[in-house]
Amino acid sequence: MTKARFYHAGCPVCVSAEQALLQHLSSDVEIDVIHLGEQPGRVAEAELAGVKSVPALVIDGNVLHINFGAPIEALK
Amino acid sequence: MTKARFYHAGCPVCVSAEQALLQHLSSDVEIDVIHLGEQPGRVAEAELAGVKSVPALVIDGNVLHINFGAPIEALK
Repeated sequence: MTKARFYHAGCPVCVSAEQALLQHLSSDVEIDVIHLGEQPGRVAEAELAGVKSVPALVIDGNVLHINFGAPIEALK
Repeated sequence: MTKARFYHAGCPVCVSAEQALLQHLSSDVEIDVIHLGEQPGRVAEAELAGVKSVPALVIDGNVLHINFGAPIEALK
């Protein structure tokens, strides 16, 4: 089982990326979807993982910034 | 079966994104990996799909620009 985190901020770019990508991940990926607008307490955790903008997928220690919705700074 | 295309240019960012993401796509995704540096004849097709930079994943009509390796202009 691979654990992954998808950070977003509810923006149209985020929702679109989520719909396009997450449905196609294999079933061995356990995905935690985090809305940083609603959970600002997790911004620090996202930054620590290397997230610079949302939407972003953190998987196997890799940060994949997908398109561009908002800079992480805007979510603090 | 979902058909997807992963455009890249062999750059470190591209290889890293490919390794992080493609192995976790579900088996119902048929993925075509295109190295635009080696197949410059397919740059036009990538642009038509909306690819602005590589690496990029085109899936279900959505273009997901993943991190940033190189602008498509640099591959012409």
